[in-house]
Amino acid sequence: MSVLALAGGVGGAKLAEGLAAIIPPGELTVAVNTGDDFEHLGLRISPDIDTVTYTLAGLNNQEQGWGLEGETWNFIAALERLGGETWFRLGDRDLATHIERTQRLKSETLSAVTADFAKRLGIRQAIVPVTDDPLRTMVQTDQGLLAFQDYFVRLRCAPRVDRLEFPGVEAMKPSAGFAAALADANLRAIVICPSNPFLSILPILSLPGIRDALEGRRVPLLAVSPIIGGQAVKGPAAKIMQELGLNVSSAGVAGFYGALLDGLMIDETDRALAPEIAGPAIHVGDTMMRDAGDRRRVATEVLAFAERISRS
Amino acid sequence: MSVLALAGGVGGAKLAEGLAAIIPPGELTVAVNTGDDFEHLGLRISPDIDTVTYTLAGLNNQEQGWGLEGETWNFIAALERLGGETWFRLGDRDLATHIERTQRLKSETLSAVTADFAKRLGIRQAIVPVTDDPLRTMVQTDQGLLAFQDYFVRLRCAPRVDRLEFPGVEAMKPSAGFAAALADANLRAIVICPSNPFLSILPILSLPGIRDALEGRRVPLLAVSPIIGGQAVKGPAAKIMQELGLNVSSAGVAGFYGALLDGLMIDETDRALAPEIAGPAIHVGDTMMRDAGDRRRVATEVLAFAERISRS
Repeated sequence: MSVLALAGGVGGAKLAEGLAAIIPPGELTVAVNTGDDFEHLGLRISPDIDTVTYTLAGLNNQEQGWGLEGETWNFIAALERLGGETWFRLGDRDLATHIERTQRLKSETLSAVTADFAKRLGIRQAIVPVTDDPLRTMVQTDQGLLAFQDYFVRLRCAPRVDRLEFPGVEAMKPSAGFAAALADANLRAIVICPSNPFLSILPILSLPGIRDALEGRRVPLLAVSPIIGGQAVKGPAAKIMQELGLNVSSAGVAGFYGALLDGLMIDETDRALAPEIAGPAIHVGDTMMRDAGDRRRVATEVLAFAERISRS
Repeated sequence: MSVLALAGGVGGAKLAEGLAAIIPPGELTVAVNTGDDFEHLGLRISPDIDTVTYTLAGLNNQEQGWGLEGETWNFIAALERLGGETWFRLGDRDLATHIERTQRLKSETLSAVTADFAKRLGIRQAIVPVTDDPLRTMVQTDQGLLAFQDYFVRLRCAPRVDRLEFPGVEAMKPSAGFAAALADANLRAIVICPSNPFLSILPILSLPGIRDALEGRRVPLLAVSPIIGGQAVKGPAAKIMQELGLNVSSAGVAGFYGALLDGLMIDETDRALAPEIAGPAIHVGDTMMRDAGDRRRVATEVLAFAERISRS
């Protein structure tokens, strides 16, 4: 019985790690956002895929969430000396991922490269990009239309977001691996990880056929709220929800996903909100994932929650 | 009064460093071989230009001659883990040079990129690639026709060399900087550095117009022999000279350059050879350049030798 997780970067990777720890290998597919992929210094960079991959491989930097543990920064220091662009800080080890991916993408799909990297790093779960097409989140802001990483890293999310756009998405296709996981007859649950609903999950939902497939689901679809006590655990989710006119709370998250959700796991802190959330079943628990034990526990609770919804 | 030096990698860089130490900035042009440039991992790599640049910037690894002092190797270790090609070992800091060059070459010439890098690294001498066209040394061997770096690094010069080829060279042009240095009315000497005659200098001589320009010179042209006591100071020069039927000695070097040479500096070890060398004037000295003092001394002797020839 398999599980499909939809994930963005750091928050998604944490729950994916928890799920990977409790589900037999071969029964977990992590479908990862590619909306924040970009070309930089001639290299193809897939930040969310790398965060999930490094995390499942146990190679991630625990403190900052993204990047590699024990990373060194000699490349970027040398690049600065030569007058190169250094606003996106690439570590020396991380660079190997981007250089090798860029090379292989000349003749392979992102799905194939991602699968091979995962295998070489000892990962036994399936990590699939949500599409092999060039999904690229664009952010319409008070400073104009910005490429995602310009908004996110270079400008540190300072501009006010008016709207997100995914140019050309109507002609794109979900990847074969993502489509197969959605159609899997053995699927028992779909889990939206505690990722940024707008930046990590909306690009996925915008892919043709995905919203329909999720609406037509025959298994429970659950989300873990990334908002605790009116704040995002990490990143700009709260700021963006507010700028886009959404209630910055787990109720707002429930409203964003609407009829897609069968269940929503919210934090203890937000227990009082539960009665206000119309629609999905609610599971209250400790959603803060500080360490591997937390991640396993949240994953376990999510799957038990799915089981309860299935039976009801 | 200016000096033009023709250089390959390590040996060339050493004499260039010596010349830079004794000639006022602005009066030295180092024209560097680009025949061993190549594309690797999607990056444009110019090994000889980098060796000369790092050396004149005082950033080179003194022990191995090429690469950067205090280099780290985390990129290449990570690349190996991903199954990438690791036979050409790129250091973390060095990688910045190749990535930034590759980016800039989309809109600039190699000459412009080389000049800007040199300036940013504090170099006040002119380093010019001999051409902005894709000069690429090919090595015809007993194992077939090999790209230069395949022969030189991947196969460690093991194949027997039958012939060197420079495909398309007849349609290439010397760079503007190289041409200008050759035509400089203030030129006082041309120095062929103790680089590999075949691998470093022959590609330069093969460029249209260069041999003619050197033959029509109005200033002394001198070489420092890279062969001491029948052996190359570094690299495969001796092996290649032998395979191509040339006497592995400073006499062989003199024969290779023929009428181009007005003077040849040979090592004390080879003093007995001097009478056998027909053609150029001979200066005997200590040509082994172990440290900065040696390099300055050899450069000083070479320029004094040029001065003597000018007057004679």
